[in-house]
Amino acid sequence: MAHIDLSNELPGIVGLLAFRPETAGPLSALAETLLRADNSLTRGEREAIAAYVSSLNECRFCDLSHSAFAARQITGGYDVVESIKRDPREAPVSPRLRALLEIAASVQRSGRAVTEGDIAAARAAGATDVEIHDTVLIAAAFCMYNRYVDGLATWAPDAREAYDEMAEAIVTSGYEASIGPGTDVDG
Amino acid sequence: MAHIDLSNELPGIVGLLAFRPETAGPLSALAETLLRADNSLTRGEREAIAAYVSSLNECRFCDLSHSAFAARQITGGYDVVESIKRDPREAPVSPRLRALLEIAASVQRSGRAVTEGDIAAARAAGATDVEIHDTVLIAAAFCMYNRYVDGLATWAPDAREAYDEMAEAIVTSGYEASIGPGTDVDG
Repeated sequence: MAHIDLSNELPGIVGLLAFRPETAGPLSALAETLLRADNSLTRGEREAIAAYVSSLNECRFCDLSHSAFAARQITGGYDVVESIKRDPREAPVSPRLRALLEIAASVQRSGRAVTEGDIAAARAAGATDVEIHDTVLIAAAFCMYNRYVDGLATWAPDAREAYDEMAEAIVTSGYEASIGPGTDVDG
Repeated sequence: MAHIDLSNELPGIVGLLAFRPETAGPLSALAETLLRADNSLTRGEREAIAAYVSSLNECRFCDLSHSAFAARQITGGYDVVESIKRDPREAPVSPRLRALLEIAASVQRSGRAVTEGDIAAARAAGATDVEIHDTVLIAAAFCMYNRYVDGLATWAPDAREAYDEMAEAIVTSGYEASIGPGTDVDG
């Protein structure tokens, strides 16, 4: 049971967004921009970074949901997402994504843990400054979303099917559609 | 020097917001909503939570800037803000704010570190569900902003006067005014 009375039965961050529409607007706009707006990183690659950071933070709801969102949008599906979460260095992904996942792991520990070496390795693998920027911000943002979801002790469904259903909605309509009316980001 | 070429000389998150206006919109809207929108927690109390989490994350730019923003808006000014950062349990603030600062410290470690005891103590001190929610989200958000600012190795001014100047702008005009045109949160 959540630490506060959400007055709804919705799981994970979905229940929190419904509880507090004032903050739901910017939180959803941020996810939409980071994970779905035009980018030289694919939606699948960005969701994989989100899933990896969520697994490092042991946030079950975010791990399972973003793993489902990544699996729907990355070549190789769940097999590749699970191999990234086991060890990005061994995952069958591009050297560029592998290097960006290393940066994300550093950010998960602390912003101050990112080294010149992390950055140089990503650049050597072909990452641009914008891709490095976006990777740092996606990793940082999931250090927020994960703490938000677990800090208020929200619940997470057990069945993978529940996450595959959420994936269908996100892949089709995005992060801002799901929060419904009353959450205009102009607040 | 920052890890990436920001094409500007602006410090901390200010340089990052100018580099990537697409994400600046939602990031600024979130700060405005959390720290300045109508709330039963004062602006000074919310900035003090932000400064405290930033100090725990050892993020120099965010610590110094939000300490200045808190000092401008909380009774007792810098003395109270510094005493909160030294040890909230000994700070001359309300029992309610003291309990909320304890929740923020748990969130800084991990969302999973927040205990039933943390929540019960805040409730006993008079905190509402929305105040507990907002404290968790402010603490979580600063785990993002701090990682963003340090993960890209932005620079931080040394002089307190620089932060007092930023405080004047934030207190007068807020977080969204400072990012200028071209950063419409409707993206």
